[in-house]
Order: sequence, then structure tokens, then C-alpha cells
Amino acid sequence: MTFENELKSIIESINRNIASIVDYKVTEKTIADAMNYSLLAGGKRVRPVLVLAVAKALGGDVNKALPFAISIECIHTYSLIHDDLPAMDNDDLRRGSPTNHIKFGEGNAILAGDGLLNLAFEIIFDEIEKSNYNSYYAKIGKIISNASGIRGMIAGQIIDIESEGKAISIDRLIEMHSKKTGALIEAACIVGALSAEREDYLDIIREYGKNIGLVFQIVDDILDYTGDPKVLGKNIGSDKENNKSTFVSLLGIEESINLSRSLTDKALEISKEIDPSGFLSDYTRYLLNRSK
Amino acid sequence: MTFENELKSIIESINRNIASIVDYKVTEKTIADAMNYSLLAGGKRVRPVLVLAVAKALGGDVNKALPFAISIECIHTYSLIHDDLPAMDNDDLRRGSPTNHIKFGEGNAILAGDGLLNLAFEIIFDEIEKSNYNSYYAKIGKIISNASGIRGMIAGQIIDIESEGKAISIDRLIEMHSKKTGALIEAACIVGALSAEREDYLDIIREYGKNIGLVFQIVDDILDYTGDPKVLGKNIGSDKENNKSTFVSLLGIEESINLSRSLTDKALEISKEIDPSGFLSDYTRYLLNRSK
Repeated sequence: MTFENELKSIIESINRNIASIVDYKVTEKTIADAMNYSLLAGGKRVRPVLVLAVAKALGGDVNKALPFAISIECIHTYSLIHDDLPAMDNDDLRRGSPTNHIKFGEGNAILAGDGLLNLAFEIIFDEIEKSNYNSYYAKIGKIISNASGIRGMIAGQIIDIESEGKAISIDRLIEMHSKKTGALIEAACIVGALSAEREDYLDIIREYGKNIGLVFQIVDDILDYTGDPKVLGKNIGSDKENNKSTFVSLLGIEESINLSRSLTDKALEISKEIDPSGFLSDYTRYLLNRSK
Repeated sequence: MTFENELKSIIESINRNIASIVDYKVTEKTIADAMNYSLLAGGKRVRPVLVLAVAKALGGDVNKALPFAISIECIHTYSLIHDDLPAMDNDDLRRGSPTNHIKFGEGNAILAGDGLLNLAFEIIFDEIEKSNYNSYYAKIGKIISNASGIRGMIAGQIIDIESEGKAISIDRLIEMHSKKTGALIEAACIVGALSAEREDYLDIIREYGKNIGLVFQIVDDILDYTGDPKVLGKNIGSDKENNKSTFVSLLGIEESINLSRSLTDKALEISKEIDPSGFLSDYTRYLLNRSK
């Protein structure tokens, strides 16, 4: 199978399983609609793909990893819904469609986000129970909850809010992104390794995750500067408009591209070492070269 | 020790332990301040007291139950912060002080709520790890996450939003409250039993929790009608102002009082059976007779 076909097949499997998760858990139609609206809006599924790719690379069972991949995607989706709110980034367009609060109102959007964050942990505790209390799955819960919490993603979001309209240093920018975006991407890689019960690979996988997490954000900044709004499904130039420091504004476009390439090379050293089939390496390159 | 002194001592122990939980976990001052502002604002600590009281009544170790009690209080506090937001109830006063978004701004208040919900699960996964993967603690995680999720508290909040300004039936009102407030109170009781590793008591404890959860809400409605704003620390009459159906508006004050008494009697039958020391029974009466 070509890389493109394999990626497509993995994303389809993620989407099929996401489609059933909210209905199964829900009682009130409004909240199900608001959650599904954002959860099923497509997106690149970077985090769940990483969970499955790492699990497979380390000899794990992707079916066992899948619920955790979806749990992480629930957290990612909640963070987008809350980020887009008027009190935060005040965005009205996401993936080419009206943002959640534009579609469902602010109150429902806040609750849909809350519901998705909560659902992520319901999924994990379900899996722990189903596995008859596999300790690896409890470790997965700890990794995910730390990554999404006030030492991880939420801390990054606070730094983001506090940095708006200010000149910040490149170190602070890296700290912000390593928490806001990097923590959950790194966690996705670690969760893949834990679901495969391969703790012997945790350090090297964490290193891999750190590198591609940063690449992901640098490429985002580059695309906000040079990307095609039609391909991206969102407005470009919003960082500049919101007076946000970015890799491009602090380092310039050329050095940003160089940095993303050298970090990708470091990640590729690791992915080539652990992944005989090559999908993880192909995906690592894809994350650098993506156009959306 | 008198009941009042015992209750005071339990609440002090909860407050002492809550005071250390956010600082330990946090990296960014703004989010710690916003979370602690609401977490340390006092309050009755009904849910954590119930966790500890049930754990003790069933022969458990209250020190083992305490982290789960605090986890539930984090979830309760997050729900208050998000409930108070302009897009929800738009309240500016809570426990006699400005609400979180008035004090810290809407963006920070949303993140403080998110951070508290997430922290609740970080605490649980920490305890699971510390206990060397005690399956009872994983069960506690499942109970709490279900109670706070889209089949529990969040569903109740959606019903609340959708019921505003409408005449709803008493059955729908009970469904709303059993989810919005009842689910987490019931969970607190069950968590107390699970932390004591007494699964043989789950059914009877669930029944106890259901009854006092409903009593709690009926008394809230009665106090919103007859209470003293100075004692309550919040404005009264807000239900009427917001055109909300309440037990008082649907049943009248006298029948509301009668219903809360008969539900308390049912709960007392259970608490007397399981609690030789009598604290749980005293506390059950206290929940009926409280003035704030």
C-alpha cells in the first residue's frame, strides 16, 4: 500500500470510530449535536494517527490503541472549541465552517468543550475496566491528563493569552508551544508506546514526540504566513492580526523553515530506528511538508 | 465530639488539603490564582464531606478517601465557574464575592474551569499509580467521570439551559436536578464506599445518594425563595428572575418542604443502618435544615 493510501485508511478507521462514540454516551440531543459538529468536522487527525502509528511501529495492536487515540482527539477538539470562543481567540471560521459557538451559541459551545474533555476520561476508564485493570492503561490516563492539564496544554493557552500584543523571546515562544500544542502531540506518541506495553521505548519516543510537536507548530506558523486559505479552511494572517509572536515573526521565514527541517531530521533518526515498515518515517516527513 | 465540631474538623481537613493541591500542580501563576480563588472560597464542601462520611461509616480510611473527595470538589467548583459565565447564568456574585469571570476575565475563568475539571482526573490517576493500580480506584474514576459527563452533570446543565423561560413538568425538573446536581452528590457517596472497598454496599449507598441529592436541590430552591441573602452569600429570587421552574414554583412551598422531609426520612433509614457513630445521620438531617 502507498503511504497516502495507508494514511487515508487509518484516518477512515479513526473517523468511523469517532462517529459512534458520542451517540453511545449521550442523553441530550443538543449537546450531542454540538460535540459531533466539531468532532466530525474532519481535520488532519494528527494526534490519533500518531498514537496508532507508534503503537503499530512497536508491535502493538492498533485496535487496543484506538480508544486512546480517540480520547486524545476529544481533548484536542475541546481545546479548539474553547480556543475559538469570543473570550479567547474569537474565531468564526474553523476547517472551512462556522466555529462551534457561531453555530450553537456560546453556552452550548462551552458545554460541548467540557463534555469532550470529560468524555476523553470516560473512554479511558471504560478501557481500564474492559481490560480488567491493565496498569498500562492507567499510565496512559496519567500521561494524557498531565498533557492536557495546567502543567501542559492549559498552561500553554494561558501563556498565549498573556503574550498577546507583546514581544516575547524565542525561548518563551518555544515554552508556550511545547505546552499548548507539543504536550498533547508528545503524549499521543507516548500513549502509542504504552498501549503496545513497550515502556522500554518511552524515552526515545518522548524525544521523537518533542521534535515533531515543535515541527508541527513551526509549520502552522509558516502556513499562517504563506498558506492558501482555501486549502487551510481558515483565514490566514490571523497571527499578525492578533499581534501574536510566531516563529516567522521572531526568526523570519527562512530560518523557521530551516529549524523545522533540522527538527524533522532528528525525529527521522528515531522513526527509522524503530519502524521497520516505514510508515512512521513517511508520516514524519508528511508533517513537515503538509499544506494544511 | 459534638456533630458541629466534627463537621468543622472534617471541613478544615478538606480545606487544608485543597489549599495545597493547585500550587503543587501548577506552572503559570494566573491560572493558579483563578483556580484557587474559587476553590478556596469556602463553600459547604457537601460532596467531599459525603465522600469522607460514607467512607468512615463503612470502616474505610478517610485519608485514602480524601484525594477523591478533593477531586469531586474540583469538578463541583469548575461547574460553578462555568455556570456563572455570561453565556450561562450570567451571575456576578457567588459566596458573597465577585464570580470568577468578574475577577479574572472570561477567558481565564473558562480556562480555570477547564483546569479544575482536568485536575480532578490528574488527582485520580495519581492515586491509582500511588496505590500500585488498585482496581477500586479505577472504579472511582469511572463513577466520577460518568457523573460529571454528558450523561450526568453536563446533561443536566443542557436541560437547565433549554428549560429557561418554559413551563416544564415536575418529572423533567427532577430529571434535570438528578443529573445537574444529583449525579455528583450520588457519586460522592458511591466513591466513599469504593474507597473503603465496600462494593457490597453500593446499591444501598446509591439509594441514599439519590435521596439526599434531591433533598439538596429542593432545599436550594426553598432557600432561593425564603433564604437570607446575607447568610446565603448570593442574591435570592434569581430563579424567579431567570424564569426558571423550581420545586417551589411547581409544587408550592409547603409541598416542597414535605417532599424534602420524606426523602430525608428515606435517607435516614439507610444512614442509621450503616453508620454506628451517627455522624452520617446527623449530616443527613443537617442537609435538610441548613440555612445556606
